[in-house]
Amino acid sequence: MPTPRENLVIANRILARRGVVDGFGHVSIRDEHRPDCFIMARSMAPALVTVDDLMRFDLDANPTDPDAPRPYLERFIHSEIYRLRPDVMAVVHHHAPSIIPFGATKTPLRPIYHMSGFLGAGVPVFDIRCDSGETDMLIRTRELGRAHANCLGPCAATLMRGHGATVVGSSLQQVVYRSVYMEMNARLQADAMRLGDPIYLTEIEARLASATNDGQLQRPWDLWAQEVTEVSD
Amino acid sequence: MPTPRENLVIANRILARRGVVDGFGHVSIRDEHRPDCFIMARSMAPALVTVDDLMRFDLDANPTDPDAPRPYLERFIHSEIYRLRPDVMAVVHHHAPSIIPFGATKTPLRPIYHMSGFLGAGVPVFDIRCDSGETDMLIRTRELGRAHANCLGPCAATLMRGHGATVVGSSLQQVVYRSVYMEMNARLQADAMRLGDPIYLTEIEARLASATNDGQLQRPWDLWAQEVTEVSD
Amino acid sequence: MPTPRENLVIANRILARRGVVDGFGHVSIRDEHRPDCFIMARSMAPALVTVDDLMRFDLDANPTDPDAPRPYLERFIHSEIYRLRPDVMAVVHHHAPSIIPFGATKTPLRPIYHMSGFLGAGVPVFDIRCDSGETDMLIRTRELGRAHANCLGPCAATLMRGHGATVVGSSLQQVVYRSVYMEMNARLQADAMRLGDPIYLTEIEARLASATNDGQLQRPWDLWAQEVTEVSD
Amino acid sequence: MPTPRENLVIANRILARRGVVDGFGHVSIRDEHRPDCFIMARSMAPALVTVDDLMRFDLDANPTDPDAPRPYLERFIHSEIYRLRPDVMAVVHHHAPSIIPFGATKTPLRPIYHMSGFLGAGVPVFDIRCDSGETDMLIRTRELGRAHANCLGPCAATLMRGHGATVVGSSLQQVVYRSVYMEMNARLQADAMRLGDPIYLTEIEARLASATNDGQLQRPWDLWAQEVTEVSD
Repeated sequence: MPTPRENLVIANRILARRGVVDGFGHVSIRDEHRPDCFIMARSMAPALVTVDDLMRFDLDANPTDPDAPRPYLERFIHSEIYRLRPDVMAVVHHHAPSIIPFGATKTPLRPIYHMSGFLGAGVPVFDIRCDSGETDMLIRTRELGRAHANCLGPCAATLMRGHGATVVGSSLQQVVYRSVYMEMNARLQADAMRLGDPIYLTEIEARLASATNDGQLQRPWDLWAQEVTEVSD
Repeated sequence: MPTPRENLVIANRILARRGVVDGFGHVSIRDEHRPDCFIMARSMAPALVTVDDLMRFDLDANPTDPDAPRPYLERFIHSEIYRLRPDVMAVVHHHAPSIIPFGATKTPLRPIYHMSGFLGAGVPVFDIRCDSGETDMLIRTRELGRAHANCLGPCAATLMRGHGATVVGSSLQQVVYRSVYMEMNARLQADAMRLGDPIYLTEIEARLASATNDGQLQRPWDLWAQEVTEVSD
Repeated sequence: MPTPRENLVIANRILARRGVVDGFGHVSIRDEHRPDCFIMARSMAPALVTVDDLMRFDLDANPTDPDAPRPYLERFIHSEIYRLRPDVMAVVHHHAPSIIPFGATKTPLRPIYHMSGFLGAGVPVFDIRCDSGETDMLIRTRELGRAHANCLGPCAATLMRGHGATVVGSSLQQVVYRSVYMEMNARLQADAMRLGDPIYLTEIEARLASATNDGQLQRPWDLWAQEVTEVSD
Repeated sequence: MPTPRENLVIANRILARRGVVDGFGHVSIRDEHRPDCFIMARSMAPALVTVDDLMRFDLDANPTDPDAPRPYLERFIHSEIYRLRPDVMAVVHHHAPSIIPFGATKTPLRPIYHMSGFLGAGVPVFDIRCDSGETDMLIRTRELGRAHANCLGPCAATLMRGHGATVVGSSLQQVVYRSVYMEMNARLQADAMRLGDPIYLTEIEARLASATNDGQLQRPWDLWAQEVTEVSD
């Protein structure tokens, strides 16, 4: 039975192997013993993360260990979501290829099939320029982190214009599931829009499908975890 | 010479490796000794299935072993097809990416080349909403299973709106072949429609090509089976 | 230094690994000692071919060994090209995904970059229906083989409506190179057509680029051969 | 700590593994000890390059060793850029699939997200026909090399009509990063254009994002280098 930190390492590798993150992107969990803290790797490629690379942060996004190594620039995405959303236990930030076009155009991301019912509540697009003019596009301050968390609201994910996406979950398994199937939905929706006018799931269908899939999260996790464990052994 | 159950395990792995199923989806065979029963894995990712994970179900989709583990929610897809179609010896249900856009739009899936002649009889689209209003999109009851099997009629496959596809065959080799080339046809047809007006196979061409390919099913099976055997050894 | 038959085995595996052939498709060479004969595998998936699976055929597509195993149904594609085109020393027939949409629509395949200059002389589309009405789409007779070879004329490749493509070369290395980059050109041309009006190579540019690349055939062959040798060792 | 030549070998393999180069394409570095020279492999597939295959060239693109093996035909791309751009320490020339359509149409390549801010200064398209009429499309002379380098100007990359792209950097890590994310940007921009009118990074956003990412180059390099080292060990 892996510890929460071991599962966080596995989550890093799953997201890398399935193309959600590449050399960039990060995943965190709320600290089970101290809900005002979260755990995330030091600044490095997710595929290479080990347990020794994990750090603890407080909700100001400061490392709790004064001798900690260099953290991710965008840790404020995580801290401000944990502050505003007590229900959130895990956060993924990524630049998966298929979602970038949705952040760069006015096309809303909508659930094309039951696997992505969690998108049914909407996916707000955060444009950093509205909050702070022209920047390097990164969420590098508490203020930007808060603006982004407010944009997320009660939803499962945001798109970030010219940047990427952020996904939240009530567990690590759920946030990994949502990250994988949000990426897939983006591809399938773009393909469907080229064929004709897609019929999306209704709000009720999306909510019901999402509830059903929340009871099945262990199934894909078991598969994905085995894939990355084989690789690293 | 593998047993039917060993071949069913190989089929699970072929479908996973070739991207027809992922963490979800399932494949079954009719029990050769008891045609009123079928064999399918317990609820788990197809790539991980072994012979020990296989269960037997009756045509009410109940496990014949009272101590059986948790089954797939959508086993009623299989049971009702076996009931209505005595010619069907194997069934695959999946959410392969390329077919989802065809289920979500009004574009009929049609045979773009001889490899998918089996699509020539048409691919009906099942919309669960027509039968039972807004649901979690899953075929979780006998009634929904029967409605879906009726929609299939004498065809080789259905598309399911906002959900996936179901494919049938007179043998395990045939249903795997059809699943792989239906997925491929969806990609090629979508690509062709962006180039111009595709010329599809005529009904006669499709039927003749399908008959020829039914004499060649062992060839790709041998290749695909070796790929997944190498992996697991 | 591999023998011609060993190189033919390597070519089978290269074409499989690079997605030009899958469970179907075939590659042949003219017999260096008997130019009225050619060498090709028995009916099987190209990725699995070994030297022991190779057979010799005369230009009527009959095996020269009366005890030979089951041959490919479409060996007449090869025999009739070798008969009509004395310059051709190697032939590939395949169903690579990217070229199918070009055979199914009226869009001519044209050289989008210097790597595929060999397409500059045109790629005729063979529609079997024009020669023999509705069939199973296969070239299963001398007559159909001759009609197809006539359609090829002096070109480097044909597209076959609802079926696939056939590529010829003055050496095995050349026909493999052409098969790989014809497949690539189809993808790139389709992508370019979605961006705007592509500027294709002129006839002269195509001819000059093709001549230059014919002096570089060993370079990709060395790479591709090593990839498939690593796999099989 | 790898030497510059060992890193150049790693760069060859990274670019091959990530699909920027295939059997063709090349990467060079300016000689740290002799800035009027550069180091590049002999004419061969990048994935197979070892330290023993590296050669030194002067700025006339002549090997400094009179017994050197056969060089790449297009070494003049490199020599003339090193001559005109003293800031450039590394050059990549490639035919990555996603960028070819941008060179073949009038669609400018623009930064769709922060990862490719280095494209913000523009990507000029070099059409060899404007300088020397119909050719085999290759930069095989000093004159063509100079025309191409002039077209590059102060930018980070060019597209070459009907041919490929050339990317420059102030370090090997930077030119590899830019090659990978220019390829990715081409894919994402093409996808976004099919969804709607993309909102590109402004010139200021692009410049600021590029400066930030230049401080993060080691992160993806570490990941990519480990991937190709695992393969070759």
